[in-house]
Amino acid sequence: MAKKVVTMGELLLRLSTPGYKRFTQAESFDIVYGGAEANVAVSLGNWGVKSYFVSQVPDNLIGKSALNYLNRYGVNTDYVVRDGDRLGIYYFEKGNSVRSSKVIYDRANSAITQVDVDKIDFDEIFKDADWFHFSGITPALGESCIKLVEKAAEAAKKYDVPISLDLNYRKQLWSYEKFEKVMPNLLQNVDVCFGWLSGVEGETGEYKVADFTKEEVDLERFANVFSKMRDKFNIKYMVSTLRENYSASHNALSAFIYDGNEIYQSKKYDFTIQDRVGAGDAFAAGLIYKLVQGENHKDALEFGVAAGVLKHTVDGDANLVMESEVNEIVKGNVSGSVQR
Amino acid sequence: MAKKVVTMGELLLRLSTPGYKRFTQAESFDIVYGGAEANVAVSLGNWGVKSYFVSQVPDNLIGKSALNYLNRYGVNTDYVVRDGDRLGIYYFEKGNSVRSSKVIYDRANSAITQVDVDKIDFDEIFKDADWFHFSGITPALGESCIKLVEKAAEAAKKYDVPISLDLNYRKQLWSYEKFEKVMPNLLQNVDVCFGWLSGVEGETGEYKVADFTKEEVDLERFANVFSKMRDKFNIKYMVSTLRENYSASHNALSAFIYDGNEIYQSKKYDFTIQDRVGAGDAFAAGLIYKLVQGENHKDALEFGVAAGVLKHTVDGDANLVMESEVNEIVKGNVSGSVQR
Amino acid sequence: MAKKVVTMGELLLRLSTPGYKRFTQAESFDIVYGGAEANVAVSLGNWGVKSYFVSQVPDNLIGKSALNYLNRYGVNTDYVVRDGDRLGIYYFEKGNSVRSSKVIYDRANSAITQVDVDKIDFDEIFKDADWFHFSGITPALGESCIKLVEKAAEAAKKYDVPISLDLNYRKQLWSYEKFEKVMPNLLQNVDVCFGWLSGVEGETGEYKVADFTKEEVDLERFANVFSKMRDKFNIKYMVSTLRENYSASHNALSAFIYDGNEIYQSKKYDFTIQDRVGAGDAFAAGLIYKLVQGENHKDALEFGVAAGVLKHTVDGDANLVMESEVNEIVKGNVSGSVQR
Amino acid sequence: MAKKVVTMGELLLRLSTPGYKRFTQAESFDIVYGGAEANVAVSLGNWGVKSYFVSQVPDNLIGKSALNYLNRYGVNTDYVVRDGDRLGIYYFEKGNSVRSSKVIYDRANSAITQVDVDKIDFDEIFKDADWFHFSGITPALGESCIKLVEKAAEAAKKYDVPISLDLNYRKQLWSYEKFEKVMPNLLQNVDVCFGWLSGVEGETGEYKVADFTKEEVDLERFANVFSKMRDKFNIKYMVSTLRENYSASHNALSAFIYDGNEIYQSKKYDFTIQDRVGAGDAFAAGLIYKLVQGENHKDALEFGVAAGVLKHTVDGDANLVMESEVNEIVKGNVSGSVQR
Amino acid sequence: MAKKVVTMGELLLRLSTPGYKRFTQAESFDIVYGGAEANVAVSLGNWGVKSYFVSQVPDNLIGKSALNYLNRYGVNTDYVVRDGDRLGIYYFEKGNSVRSSKVIYDRANSAITQVDVDKIDFDEIFKDADWFHFSGITPALGESCIKLVEKAAEAAKKYDVPISLDLNYRKQLWSYEKFEKVMPNLLQNVDVCFGWLSGVEGETGEYKVADFTKEEVDLERFANVFSKMRDKFNIKYMVSTLRENYSASHNALSAFIYDGNEIYQSKKYDFTIQDRVGAGDAFAAGLIYKLVQGENHKDALEFGVAAGVLKHTVDGDANLVMESEVNEIVKGNVSGSVQR
Amino acid sequence: MAKKVVTMGELLLRLSTPGYKRFTQAESFDIVYGGAEANVAVSLGNWGVKSYFVSQVPDNLIGKSALNYLNRYGVNTDYVVRDGDRLGIYYFEKGNSVRSSKVIYDRANSAITQVDVDKIDFDEIFKDADWFHFSGITPALGESCIKLVEKAAEAAKKYDVPISLDLNYRKQLWSYEKFEKVMPNLLQNVDVCFGWLSGVEGETGEYKVADFTKEEVDLERFANVFSKMRDKFNIKYMVSTLRENYSASHNALSAFIYDGNEIYQSKKYDFTIQDRVGAGDAFAAGLIYKLVQGENHKDALEFGVAAGVLKHTVDGDANLVMESEVNEIVKGNVSGSVQR
Repeated sequence: MAKKVVTMGELLLRLSTPGYKRFTQAESFDIVYGGAEANVAVSLGNWGVKSYFVSQVPDNLIGKSALNYLNRYGVNTDYVVRDGDRLGIYYFEKGNSVRSSKVIYDRANSAITQVDVDKIDFDEIFKDADWFHFSGITPALGESCIKLVEKAAEAAKKYDVPISLDLNYRKQLWSYEKFEKVMPNLLQNVDVCFGWLSGVEGETGEYKVADFTKEEVDLERFANVFSKMRDKFNIKYMVSTLRENYSASHNALSAFIYDGNEIYQSKKYDFTIQDRVGAGDAFAAGLIYKLVQGENHKDALEFGVAAGVLKHTVDGDANLVMESEVNEIVKGNVSGSVQR
Repeated sequence: MAKKVVTMGELLLRLSTPGYKRFTQAESFDIVYGGAEANVAVSLGNWGVKSYFVSQVPDNLIGKSALNYLNRYGVNTDYVVRDGDRLGIYYFEKGNSVRSSKVIYDRANSAITQVDVDKIDFDEIFKDADWFHFSGITPALGESCIKLVEKAAEAAKKYDVPISLDLNYRKQLWSYEKFEKVMPNLLQNVDVCFGWLSGVEGETGEYKVADFTKEEVDLERFANVFSKMRDKFNIKYMVSTLRENYSASHNALSAFIYDGNEIYQSKKYDFTIQDRVGAGDAFAAGLIYKLVQGENHKDALEFGVAAGVLKHTVDGDANLVMESEVNEIVKGNVSGSVQR
Repeated sequence: MAKKVVTMGELLLRLSTPGYKRFTQAESFDIVYGGAEANVAVSLGNWGVKSYFVSQVPDNLIGKSALNYLNRYGVNTDYVVRDGDRLGIYYFEKGNSVRSSKVIYDRANSAITQVDVDKIDFDEIFKDADWFHFSGITPALGESCIKLVEKAAEAAKKYDVPISLDLNYRKQLWSYEKFEKVMPNLLQNVDVCFGWLSGVEGETGEYKVADFTKEEVDLERFANVFSKMRDKFNIKYMVSTLRENYSASHNALSAFIYDGNEIYQSKKYDFTIQDRVGAGDAFAAGLIYKLVQGENHKDALEFGVAAGVLKHTVDGDANLVMESEVNEIVKGNVSGSVQR
Repeated sequence: MAKKVVTMGELLLRLSTPGYKRFTQAESFDIVYGGAEANVAVSLGNWGVKSYFVSQVPDNLIGKSALNYLNRYGVNTDYVVRDGDRLGIYYFEKGNSVRSSKVIYDRANSAITQVDVDKIDFDEIFKDADWFHFSGITPALGESCIKLVEKAAEAAKKYDVPISLDLNYRKQLWSYEKFEKVMPNLLQNVDVCFGWLSGVEGETGEYKVADFTKEEVDLERFANVFSKMRDKFNIKYMVSTLRENYSASHNALSAFIYDGNEIYQSKKYDFTIQDRVGAGDAFAAGLIYKLVQGENHKDALEFGVAAGVLKHTVDGDANLVMESEVNEIVKGNVSGSVQR
Repeated sequence: MAKKVVTMGELLLRLSTPGYKRFTQAESFDIVYGGAEANVAVSLGNWGVKSYFVSQVPDNLIGKSALNYLNRYGVNTDYVVRDGDRLGIYYFEKGNSVRSSKVIYDRANSAITQVDVDKIDFDEIFKDADWFHFSGITPALGESCIKLVEKAAEAAKKYDVPISLDLNYRKQLWSYEKFEKVMPNLLQNVDVCFGWLSGVEGETGEYKVADFTKEEVDLERFANVFSKMRDKFNIKYMVSTLRENYSASHNALSAFIYDGNEIYQSKKYDFTIQDRVGAGDAFAAGLIYKLVQGENHKDALEFGVAAGVLKHTVDGDANLVMESEVNEIVKGNVSGSVQR
Repeated sequence: MAKKVVTMGELLLRLSTPGYKRFTQAESFDIVYGGAEANVAVSLGNWGVKSYFVSQVPDNLIGKSALNYLNRYGVNTDYVVRDGDRLGIYYFEKGNSVRSSKVIYDRANSAITQVDVDKIDFDEIFKDADWFHFSGITPALGESCIKLVEKAAEAAKKYDVPISLDLNYRKQLWSYEKFEKVMPNLLQNVDVCFGWLSGVEGETGEYKVADFTKEEVDLERFANVFSKMRDKFNIKYMVSTLRENYSASHNALSAFIYDGNEIYQSKKYDFTIQDRVGAGDAFAAGLIYKLVQGENHKDALEFGVAAGVLKHTVDGDANLVMESEVNEIVKGNVSGSVQR
């Protein structure tokens, strides 16, 4: 029986230059629709989960196109409110080799920032839900959005729905001070937390080793930070990825999970990159997919990181891979030989 | 010696679905940059005029791409202020036959609405200018924009620069009441006015005849409206196009000019349509191109309407046609035979 | 409250050459998914109906892509059986002017021809349905498919679900003799019938007048054929379109409905063509959309024919138009002027 | 038994802007290979004739790509000499409605102008040939090319191979004086001549009637010119098309043939245009296709003009249509209805 | 004097998603035509060999397009029978990095499986042939195809035409039991055999070393298997490639040949991948190209493996590289510097 | 205050096959405009320099499109003479991995080779210039071009404008003997010289080390050659890049500068390649950009080589990167992580 997973957040129009064209060269933009939580929703819907995305999207044909996109990949959008002025946009230019990818946000005053929380029937949404996931990007969008996720987290708790939160601090959207003031309240209800608050290390990717796929990582440092977060907010699992950026075309990835007793590190993967965006969301989706089905957290982590690695091979924000493909990676088959 | 023509207004990113795809079908958007005044600027720059466009555009790579677009077609953007949050957008879906084209605006809070008028050196801009053109769309964008065009019109007058104004009332942007309150002040300085205020007829295209290219138009009605406008605001030339929409793929076009004595109607053209947008701007540009060079107003009108007709054959907002092509149309050569 | 409409038939992959390229010139094929009933399902799903499509589709990624396509446009595919060897294909080359469009079928041995009728829960499908639609193409695909639509029609009747049948005889798929032997049994349960059996006239488009949009049609001839069909099979409404092919780029269309008392002819439309395929399905969908909501059959016919006309402006098999657009056509607004 | 038809001339690279883009808008060029005689060769090869094209093409990968293009459509290129500096180019921008198409030649110093006639084995080429076709464009390319076609015509005559010549005067390539000096010598050997020398009328398309598809043409005028040409050069059939350019998107076409006794006019066709280039070559190919098979000249003319009309619906220089499609047009079926 | 090489097998339509798009993302398919033997035929035709491909292809425009494709690249298709229901298809999705490429076959009931062997004039085909090549895929397609290759091999032997056979066992097409029962009969006539039957090792690519381009391979193991095959079936040369799949974007390749006395290993190459398909066919074609010209088997092997490596840089199934390019690789120039 | 930099040379149309398609596969060419000096001009214009390009370009729409391209990226083309027969062309096919890129020139008889030096107002051009750059390619184009650059260099000297010269010997354009005879005269006026004459080493890229990014280079050898050149021609700075071609997709780059006292080597970079063309020009532009602003030559070299490395990530001839991006590379940030 398929599980019902609820995600909530902003749905964005991504406008990407084709191939590796620069903004100043582009004569067209490729269209996909994404956003941290929407990406999780698509991963799950694509794997057969009853994936419900909650948001506000304008009642015009751009909004309709965005929802059609989610529907196409198995996401139910019945809970999306159709109101507000505009769909948020981000412009994306893909880098390669020594040239980094560029993101230009044009998401201010988007529909979700104008959401009227009273229009949303949280009971209807959560009464039969099996999981709720959101990210720290949504409360960054303004007071209505803070209220939105607070109400949602409360409703989820009311119905004993496990909650996962990807902290995902974005410095372009708000100050770290505001972030640290808002998140603790939300963290009270969280069961699985991606990232951590104000540690000595940054959230992800800043822990450096000389050659990541060959050297050992100092797990103690992670365990220490995770432990403090876990105790303070009564979180079941603390999770993080560890990424090494060799170039815009070549990265390595691993992940960690801490259950209070033990910090467990996943396999490490070294790979080239087709599209870097949404890999963290793909990782989160993979972990949630296994946890919501009751699998153990270590297997869930391995599935998550393999899903995250696979995302780098797929164009767009969303991780359009099959479960069987993820399982092949988990099993260690990264040879990429043709499947006939 | 090339004339210096100044245009002022918003520069918009147009995102169009390819071919005749609907928004809900599109996987990419074609990019052009336009806006009523920018379209006039490109027409003129493309014909070798020293065409200066004045606006505010964000200091990011989307803004840079927009300016590069104008530069490519011969427009000087040295007077454009690089500031503000975002470039305004309009989404465009091209219709055909019985299906109309659709425009969705996402231009609120664009850079030009945040313009600081004091940053603009109007003396530098107008002291050696030969013409100034703007439209009624710009003051519709907010108080800063009203101030912007008012200051510009005053500066133009100070240096005896002729002014043309395309009234271009847009009901999505402001109320007709506001429009009628703001425009008279601007009209005081205008020499050439496209359209009219609150006549019995709509601005353009609403005057109906059964078969436009075959029947006579009741010129008296136009002359009457034009005469009132002309006297009230001391305008030299009152101008308007007359369009018949047979379908989204087939229109007819003519134009009128009134000099106080006589109303003169141009040739009438019947044509199929490749891209309808910007035809009015192409017409205005054609008329201005001839008037700024001192040609008589009837020849200018014929050149303008031929330019406007040709615009329908060109993709995008801007009328990328050669002067020689317009002259062929004026001469009556609409056979479209291959030029080898 | 949205109505539940069930459609049943084959889902085909359409491979079209881009633009007006010939098969021998093509380096790529554009992809859409269609089929007579699937096209009806998409029209309805796109207008907000609870549109359920029933079929069998192979359990591979081509099958999944086909279903995703339906989901994208609002069609529920939960009743689709995932089994069988292959998705049927049709190759399509679009004609223009004097050159006709070409269809090459490669649909033999497709998944639906291998359907095991016992795998389908007809009670579940029809118990709360408001309408059932299918076409004469499906029984042409083989004995399993005859059994499939027979069982479906019986189940629909059991639950008092109105049934519409588009006779749609296809000479490439079966002989007229077989067609005339199979259809009567299916017609026993039908409430709305598109086309007729073995009349003196062909199904559609063969009734000729010199200039269709200007001359009168001899309605008596239609009424006579319709009356016989209606009496014999106890059908509520007999319906047909009347099309005039001036060229591959230019057609005219009207439609007729007969309720036993009166034959009613819709408005006649003259239009140019972007994509001819699926116009009949769009017409059927429009009529059903109104009838299932209880509107009178004349208004339904007008909505249907306007929807059918609009289809010619849309790429692909499916009629991705808004209800408001159809209503504009019904109201007589075919001017195609830009909607801002 | 397939006939062997030899054509001789320049093979050009055509670089066209996509769709209706102007040169100044283009970011890419579509590639086809053409030229008057190559177009005839492709028409014939595509219909199953043993079509041999003779030319000189540079021994680089651009030359190879050009020959591959001919091979793809059934043309044998074994007689093509691989030498010379460059492949001639023509840039093409397709017009629509009132905007004419533009051709920019960059064919000076192309490989064929450097041909060494002694490298060509004319006996091998013509000893078993059934037809030879060339045009007046080739001798316009320079002295080597004059010698080339002279030698070819002599060799053809030696083996009793019928010769057709499309006079095709091109004012960009040479003066009319030179043309009139060179052509008579070539005309001595010609059996079928397209166009005429220095008549009162231009070669094609300049004879005007008010509404070509409705009015009668003054056949006497044509017969008179044709008769003089025929007698002077001992030509069997004089042929010409008559075209009316309503716009770049809409033309009408008919053709005439004169056998010494009677001038015969083909059906007249009215059609919209996808690609105008090569229609004259398609006409010539159609006529030759029937004459080489011994059919009567009136049927050949009807086939030729139907082929020429169909060419307007096909992208590129070459008339990639099936014989059965031409026959449908000849039979009067121009309805363009879908062929399933 | 160019050699005549005959290849025989199925011609397939390959439908590939553009770039690295997944099936579920694709809006279009890129078209090439291929198949193991057709790929060999194109390699050889492209290098100037008189390359004849024998097959059965449907008599419709898809079949014609497929043959045109072969003609374009220098393959003679005069021996292809035009009959049967459909062209076989394979859908292809290109992988990258850790994601493998996917092949979905839709080739059942294709034209070649319906071939009537009596329609083929084997004497005509083989009487002046210099080589015959086929693969183990063709007999996997059914009894008619087994008969087809048996008759062909007999005819080739009758005229002393050397035969090469690429065993190429495909588990999706038939069982290994059937394969082992059918192939021995065919092997009786074979001079050059790619791969082996039921050895301890798999056919290709399964022999593993830790870092293929650096370590030595245990040649004894290969020699042992090769020796048994060679003796049993009286084969002149036993050949195999050895591939290491580091990822879908990065492989290494070498090859071996055994002449009864000595096993010779080619150079090893390490390379990134643009299109993996057809590399084995490119290798076979390279080897045959040299052997048919009488060059020694070691040089032929080096040419073959260099050709196979180069194939990975070319889009599509066929190895469209120049002989000079292969020679550069053989000489050790893999620097890829620009050739001006 | 922006500096005025003058560049002079040929402007070429580059026609590239899309992606990694071979010439024989291409159905379209991507268009950019380039040439050694034009590429430098675009780099500088894009960074805000008053970049003036001097050339002759035909007075047709291909010429106009080429100039529009330069205008788009900030280059002033007011000094370009509009005359001459044709724009030079180069065809480009991009290689990957072991397959090298191919360039086919079709630049003979281009407009610049027909330049009338007297039409150029050298005083106007150089009187307020801050730098003059040209390359050894221009004098290779013929006597008019030699005269052109000689006059330009004299005029530059007259106004004390520093001159840089990229020797850039091209063997397809002239003999080394001619090169060595012409260049010394030009070198008399040069301040910064890229490359050297007839040393024991080739100009660039031929100095080999086993693993370039890891091993030391023998700087003495370079210093020795540089020193001789510097003394002979009284050059201020001798400069060269050092490139290692691992494959068409993977190179390494460093550069050297010699000021008479010391040879300074820049950082070494290892990178993958999107488009190799124009990297040397990008390097030159980077160096000039810093030198013209008075920065020290070592920092200029580092900026130049970082710019050159970045060029490999950008499609087309021109280095469309931001100054800030170059600075990031100079600072050592080559991680390519996403910039949000």
